[in-house]
Order: sequence, then C-alpha cells, then structure tokens
Amino acid sequence: MNLLGSTIKKIAPQDADTRVRARARLEQLTMPYWALGRLMDLAEELAGMTVSIKPSVSRKTVVTMAGDHGIAAAGVSKYPQEVTVQMVYNFVNGGAGINALARLVGARVVVVDMGVAGDLSALVKGGKIISKRVGAGTKNMLTESAMSRDEAVSSLEGGIEVAQELGASTDIFGTGDMGIGNTSPSAAIINIFSGSPVSEIAGRGTGIDDKQLLKKIAMIEKAIAVNKPNPGDALDVLAKVGGFEIGGIAGLILGAASMRKPVLIDGFISTAGALIAANLAPVSRDYMIASHRSMEKGHKIALDCLGKKPLLDLDLRLGEGTGAALSMNLVEAAVRIITEVATFEEAAVSKADK
Amino acid sequence: MNLLGSTIKKIAPQDADTRVRARARLEQLTMPYWALGRLMDLAEELAGMTVSIKPSVSRKTVVTMAGDHGIAAAGVSKYPQEVTVQMVYNFVNGGAGINALARLVGARVVVVDMGVAGDLSALVKGGKIISKRVGAGTKNMLTESAMSRDEAVSSLEGGIEVAQELGASTDIFGTGDMGIGNTSPSAAIINIFSGSPVSEIAGRGTGIDDKQLLKKIAMIEKAIAVNKPNPGDALDVLAKVGGFEIGGIAGLILGAASMRKPVLIDGFISTAGALIAANLAPVSRDYMIASHRSMEKGHKIALDCLGKKPLLDLDLRLGEGTGAALSMNLVEAAVRIITEVATFEEAAVSKADK
Repeated sequence: MNLLGSTIKKIAPQDADTRVRARARLEQLTMPYWALGRLMDLAEELAGMTVSIKPSVSRKTVVTMAGDHGIAAAGVSKYPQEVTVQMVYNFVNGGAGINALARLVGARVVVVDMGVAGDLSALVKGGKIISKRVGAGTKNMLTESAMSRDEAVSSLEGGIEVAQELGASTDIFGTGDMGIGNTSPSAAIINIFSGSPVSEIAGRGTGIDDKQLLKKIAMIEKAIAVNKPNPGDALDVLAKVGGFEIGGIAGLILGAASMRKPVLIDGFISTAGALIAANLAPVSRDYMIASHRSMEKGHKIALDCLGKKPLLDLDLRLGEGTGAALSMNLVEAAVRIITEVATFEEAAVSKADK
Repeated sequence: MNLLGSTIKKIAPQDADTRVRARARLEQLTMPYWALGRLMDLAEELAGMTVSIKPSVSRKTVVTMAGDHGIAAAGVSKYPQEVTVQMVYNFVNGGAGINALARLVGARVVVVDMGVAGDLSALVKGGKIISKRVGAGTKNMLTESAMSRDEAVSSLEGGIEVAQELGASTDIFGTGDMGIGNTSPSAAIINIFSGSPVSEIAGRGTGIDDKQLLKKIAMIEKAIAVNKPNPGDALDVLAKVGGFEIGGIAGLILGAASMRKPVLIDGFISTAGALIAANLAPVSRDYMIASHRSMEKGHKIALDCLGKKPLLDLDLRLGEGTGAALSMNLVEAAVRIITEVATFEEAAVSKADK
C-alpha cells in the first residue's frame, strides 16, 4: 500500500468516551451552563481528537504551501505569476501577513514548495523552506488536465510527509497557501463537490473587477467542461482541476488526522484542499476546525459542503494561513477553559437553585 | 465642575490625520488591497484613537465591575444573590473564565466592588480588589428608583477613577461585569435607548426557562412603567433602572476615552453601560470596540443602537469580561499588521499589474 493509502487507513474517529468526560468537566465549571458557547464545543472536540481531557495545543505550526498554476497565463489574477516566488521570499524574511500573525500567537511558519514556476532551490539548500516539489507549476486546465493522477498522489503524499516530519514537534497544525491564480482551481473543486454553480463560487481573488470576474467564471466553467472531473473520485478532481499546493494541503490534513492532531483550515483555497481530504477520507473531518469565513464569494458554500462552521468572520481574504493563525488563539482559549477554570465544588460557588 | 463633567469635556474625537497616515501605510502592505479586512479597519481606528501609526496595546487590563441588584429578590435569575460575592472570590483566586482567558492574552484582571450586597472588605484591605462601593446593592426598581441621581454620578465617577488609577499602566481596557440579576437592568436600559420592545431584548441570562423569561419581561416592563426613565437624560436612566456596576462600566469607558485609550466592550451588560456612556458623551464611541455578539437575546439590538459591529460571534453569554479578553488578541493582531508587515517596496514584491 502506498503512503496515501496507509495514512488514510490510520485515521480513526474522535474518541467518544473522552468527549463524554470532557463534557462532564465543562458542565461543572463555575459559570452558567455552557456559557462559553462555541469555545466549549471546541474544547470537547479537541478532547475527542487528542484522547485527552487536558489537550495541549502549545506547539503550533502553520504550513504555507506554495504552488503555481497554468491557468494564471490566461489572466485570472490581478498579480503576475512571479509574485508566488517573491512572496515565498517575503515569508522567509518574516515580512508577510502570516509572519506577523504567527508571531502573535506563538506559531512557527513552515513554507513548502509544492511546485512553483520559479526557482526556490537556494532557500531549500539553506534550510529555509521544505521542498516537496511536484513540478514547475501545473499545466493549463483550460486545455488539459492540470496534472497527472500520479502527480496528484505525489502532491498528497508530499503533504503527508510534511505532517509526519513536523508531527513530533507540533500539537496543532494550520493550513496555508500561496499561489497566484489558485482561487480558480479552488472554485472548480468546490463546484465539483458542492454542485453549486461556478458563478456563485468564484470570487474576486486578489481583487479583479466585474469584467475580469465574468471572464474568470467562464474560464473555470470551460476547464471543467474540458476535463470532466468525476465527483466520486477526489484524485481525479485534484488531478484535473486542482493544484500542487491544494494537494499538499489535503495531504497535510490527512497526515495530521492520522496522528490525531487538530488542523485549522484557513480560507477558500485551504477549504478546497480540505474537501479533497474529506472526499478521500471522510473521517478526516473529525480533525478539521474551520478557522474563518473568508470574503471570497463561495467560501460559505465550501464550508457548508465540508459541514463546518467557521470560528471567525472578519472579511479576510489573504490566505497564507492568516485565518488559521489568528484562530489558534481561540483554540488555545478552549484548552484554557477546560484545563484552568475551577468547578463549582473547587471554588465553593453556589449552583443554580432553580 | 465635577469629575464626570470634566472627564466628558476632555474626550476628543479620533485623530483624522493619523487615520489617513495609517491607511496609507496599510494600503502599501504586501497583500491584495485591504486583504485583512476588519483587522485593517481596526488598525486604522487604533491609530486614530492613540494618535500614532504604531499604536501599542501590549499592556492590557480587563476591569470586572461587581454589583448587586434589588430586583434579584424578585427571582429574575437562576442563581442566588450570594453568587456575586462568591464569584469575586473566584476571580481573586484565578479560577473563573475571565482569569483563564486573561492569562491567555496577557491581560491583568482588576476586580472592582461597585456595590455588592455582601462583604468584600477583607479583599479590599488585602489589596486584592478595588472598592468604589456606592451601596449594598441597588434598590428594587419594581417599586422605586434603583439608585438616587447622586449615586448614579458616584458610580460613574468610581469608574472614571478606576480608569485614571490604571491608566498609567494600561494601553487598552476591557470591560467586564459580575452581578446576579444584572441582565434585567441592562435590558431596561437597552429598551429605553433603542425603543425596541422589552420582549425582544430580555433574554435567558444565566439560563432561565420560558415561564421565568415571561415573568422577567413583565417585571422589566413594570420597572420601566413605575420609574419612567427619560431617554434624553442618561443619568436619569442609570439612576432609575441601572446598576452600580453598569455605572462603573460607563465611567470606565468615559475615563479611558478621555485618555485616548481604546476600550473593548464585553457583552450584554457592558453594552448597556456603553450606551449610558455614549448618551452622556457621544464622542466616547470613538474609543469603543465591540468585542463580541453575545447569545443574550437583545445584544444585537444594543450593538446596533450603539452603532458598533462586534468582532466575534461565538455564542458566549458569560460576561465577566471574557469576550473583551478574547478579542484583545484580535486587537493586537491589528497592531501587528500595521507595525510588522512589509510594504511592496520594502519586500521587493511586484504590485498588481492590472
């Protein structure tokens, strides 16, 4: 069995008994019943994921997966393709949005070259980034499959390997992406799995105008018509209309789930990756936490399709893992509640009398 | 002029020039235009409040104001009145929800006795809490004014003094409350200022059932009918249907605003306090940040009336300052973005080409 198959086989559901014990503790805390709402839901989930009523999320890693896209040549983005590589340098130098937010929450940022069009070998040699390069960007899905089925497996296994390599030093993962043009493959993936029309899913990405958006929608529709991805075969979907970093994100999620580690799903692109993972291994959803709802048009459709309600809704649309980083503080809040708040008995506080 | 009057007189609007400079910097950061959405709005606001494009929010203080309520005797809450004092001990011992969340975000918790029914003098003598005690709980607003007009001024000035005493060691304040029965006066205040019916504002508080909720609504309506607070006179509203800790919260906000310091408004009770402050000094709103939307029914009405959109929406309904503490991390994220993210020029990243 290959790494993908063996990893999927290892993924077990959340532990029901631990959830029951977590809930029992949460119900005794010195506050009205479930008064910290979704943070308490999250504490229960984290207990189920980690099989511990004292889960730890102190060692945080955001993995920012970079890849380029053949469809960028068709002008779906406001930025030129070289920005993917330039932004990887910005990540390494600590100057991007993800760096600032990761520093705030005490998370490490690990950048992975899943397949950019430019040359990042200097950064790989210098140990600044990890390479799980599948190719120099995908092919143009307007005319052919974005990648081969073997490459799709390679991108997933690259993500799994990253999860395994970082797993010993990570309690919680966050996903992130960088790739000029990558809202287009993401919209295609979300269309295939949700069945909602591309026009309700594709958004402005980095900020294109109405005319460019209409063109983008038409191109995504064409890519789907040309390739005819099979919704019942997630590997086929990833190969035909996906991207290397999207496969990497899906693999990271599968790898994390196989190690019983929670994964915060970032925005639109990461949710497309999460849908690939969920369709390859439905139980991997037990380890996914939706960090935020992005401004990108179809993100709500994608999250509904994944069956996840986001923690934050702050009009973010940057990617990189910024929403995942930001919500790590909320996940840690959930842990603090179950581990640090006193029970009525411990604090000698009177319970409800009616 | 008394302390209340002189403080109100000192409150100046956000600085427009600094906002312009902050916006100019934010627009040059290495990301698509305004791609971190509401965090960037917040960064601009913080710059305007503090008159600095490098605002600091590192020294964080949550002030949890405690007070008791005559109306508690009528059975509006699920918990007995002694819980107010018991919870103050829990705060001092570090075992409450607010303690866990404040530790997470690096905030100090300062507890203030604004007027509880029990005895907290040992904690005051020990320097564990501050006393700005106005009385041993308010009177029962079902039959008379909750407090006198002088007491209303005292509660506001107590809050202002707390802001002034803590101001030298605080960059950002969070409000918080503890007081069995205090959703009832809060609902009354929100009714007076918003004009929305009590039945659409009053909620389940600590968790009362349908029958108790109907009774609570009827009692709040009766208190309003008996006292006839004047919506054009915020002092009259606070005196007739308010509470000592609600006055304290309003005073804290006014004091913070007079020192150009941002204040995170917690949930339902804190928003009632914020409405008192906003009606006494409309420009104080320039320093208010709504931390979250609470589960308590009328909180959205209250926030709309205040003209604020909350940062978080996580089904919290605990009070104590927990929502304010939790959102301090988001405020700090806004600061990190404007102070730490590189510009296109600094990072040599290509700008949008269309």
